[in-house]
Amino acid sequence: MHDSLPACDQAHMARALRLARRGLFSTHPNPRVGCVIVAADGEIVGEGWHVRAGEPHAEVHALRQAGARARGATAYVTLEPCSHHGRTPPCAEALVEAGVARVVAAMQDPNPQVAGRGLQRLRAAGIAVTCGVLEAEARALNVGFVKRMEQGLPYVRVKLAMSLDGRTAMASGESQWITGPQARAAVQRLRARSSVVISGADTVLCDNARLTVRPDELEVDAEQAALAAARPPLRVLVDGQLRVPLTAAFFRAGPAMVACCEDDGRGADYQAGGHVLLPLPRGDGHVDLRLLLAELAAAGANEVLVEAGPRLAGAFAREGLVDEYRIFMAPQLLGSTARPLLDWPLAQMSEAPQLDIREIRAVGRDWQIVARPV
Amino acid sequence: MHDSLPACDQAHMARALRLARRGLFSTHPNPRVGCVIVAADGEIVGEGWHVRAGEPHAEVHALRQAGARARGATAYVTLEPCSHHGRTPPCAEALVEAGVARVVAAMQDPNPQVAGRGLQRLRAAGIAVTCGVLEAEARALNVGFVKRMEQGLPYVRVKLAMSLDGRTAMASGESQWITGPQARAAVQRLRARSSVVISGADTVLCDNARLTVRPDELEVDAEQAALAAARPPLRVLVDGQLRVPLTAAFFRAGPAMVACCEDDGRGADYQAGGHVLLPLPRGDGHVDLRLLLAELAAAGANEVLVEAGPRLAGAFAREGLVDEYRIFMAPQLLGSTARPLLDWPLAQMSEAPQLDIREIRAVGRDWQIVARPV
Repeated sequence: MHDSLPACDQAHMARALRLARRGLFSTHPNPRVGCVIVAADGEIVGEGWHVRAGEPHAEVHALRQAGARARGATAYVTLEPCSHHGRTPPCAEALVEAGVARVVAAMQDPNPQVAGRGLQRLRAAGIAVTCGVLEAEARALNVGFVKRMEQGLPYVRVKLAMSLDGRTAMASGESQWITGPQARAAVQRLRARSSVVISGADTVLCDNARLTVRPDELEVDAEQAALAAARPPLRVLVDGQLRVPLTAAFFRAGPAMVACCEDDGRGADYQAGGHVLLPLPRGDGHVDLRLLLAELAAAGANEVLVEAGPRLAGAFAREGLVDEYRIFMAPQLLGSTARPLLDWPLAQMSEAPQLDIREIRAVGRDWQIVARPV
Repeated sequence: MHDSLPACDQAHMARALRLARRGLFSTHPNPRVGCVIVAADGEIVGEGWHVRAGEPHAEVHALRQAGARARGATAYVTLEPCSHHGRTPPCAEALVEAGVARVVAAMQDPNPQVAGRGLQRLRAAGIAVTCGVLEAEARALNVGFVKRMEQGLPYVRVKLAMSLDGRTAMASGESQWITGPQARAAVQRLRARSSVVISGADTVLCDNARLTVRPDELEVDAEQAALAAARPPLRVLVDGQLRVPLTAAFFRAGPAMVACCEDDGRGADYQAGGHVLLPLPRGDGHVDLRLLLAELAAAGANEVLVEAGPRLAGAFAREGLVDEYRIFMAPQLLGSTARPLLDWPLAQMSEAPQLDIREIRAVGRDWQIVARPV
């Protein structure tokens, strides 16, 4: 048994989390995972991170690098090692075979196929196991994967761009570029980390929006940009009445999914263009957004970014489907006749939704607000 | 001559600025000034700050404390020492008589009665003079005094409380307590540092507002609270048509000034209650706000705080009279039918006023935004 100081455990786990974060744009539908292997003398002998689904897990990369020096070492992993045969063999077995003496995991795997069985397997093999080091940070890194495993729904971020007085556009609809280049780069990174980007017919029609990731605008290093380019998020258009023509820039930018109320017979046209039509009627002329999210989760979506106008974003909000608001606030006033942040009429203060503003930080001349419903 | 390192100059001036700040609530209409006297061996031998108008200036307090040890010392003052006989004798003379070898001033006095003559007097007496150490900080501490001296107008802050979606109240007018206790304490400190607090008839009628300083809510130490209690800001009500009855809580809370369009014959009633009626018609049924500010500056007002509803605050904004917004943002959504931040209809984005958001900081569960028009 090793006598590692908790401070050392935290430092090594922090390093493993930094490695895991390199998979931010690419591991979908898998979680981001990092691994650090530390020999008994404190030397780091192996490091690894999961790059993309179907390729080796973080532990495998790290064990390969460590080779024989893994024997008697401590392995730090940001997520409980898997115990099941998926597209790759179970990592718990690999750690046992390599002869590590101790495994420190940040958190148990919320995947019901694992759910503690990976740690059990390690303990059964006589390996010392610690779980829960930097757990909050590890959960935050995979907030979408955790929610999907626990609730069968993705983690939904709603991105909004507003003026200091809470307006998204002039009454006329005039709106583009209210935020600056750094804020737009931050939005690009939000898109790139998401499994799915959802938009609405208004946004696609009025702003000619494509909702694509443009790797050269991410403001990340070349490796990260390449990973983002290789794994673009699925673009989903909520278009109940199929108002957006297939000639729109949104459709010309690549294959997309369209959530609608009914297939009016044009399904084959969408299919011919490489798109998928998904009828999800709610019976009131609107798309069933909760069902849409459940379908997306079933297809592996961890994090969903909603980039839409006040109407669709307001619908997600009113239906209680928002986990997090990312509001980019521009330093200007659009005035009292401009469009609201969300279409959400409320009569009394007792109905006013309370939020927890987690963070406000400068992004160029704009400010990014992270808020969650409470 | 002394060989002070610039770093030492800055450290001593920073100390003098901290002393000056103790007069934040009490020096009106004078500027806040601090003074530190440092002997040749580096020992601080005297400290002082200006407490209130009519009482000794900072330099006099510091020289008294230093006594004979002021001879050959360096005096750090946050504002150029005065050269004129006001209610107290000129400080430049006092420094010469005390035999200081060097004077470091943060900034020249913007008062046209001084304007460099204090420093000239010192140089003429053979004293080494440095001016401009931590000048930006010194100007910020007396932003209102500087503006009044340079432009004949006070520095106007507009305090607003809004939800995350930029709304100040429900459509019904329901609004009180949208921000928490720490934000309210911050507003109390903004009132206490101001020469004048301006409000409007809507606010006073609907919210039953008194706009007083409540020293026990300032969340400052006992000395500061006592200074604030002894020098309350003048409360000014903009009430063009004299809609607010003299029985309102606002008038019962103490003497006030009322800016109106005309004295309808009730001037004597106001006067009997200890209030002053000031007719400032602009000819369109509204009070001339620019003229009001000029009148207040002529009476010595340095900093003015506008605490009003969207209509009056919007009028100050539309007329270009706002130097700084202090927006307290509560973590909630009031929805798309709630009242706007400012009544300021704009048709095109090209008309949208640009701001510089200087600072956003957490105040309890709320956030304070400091923004200035650019």
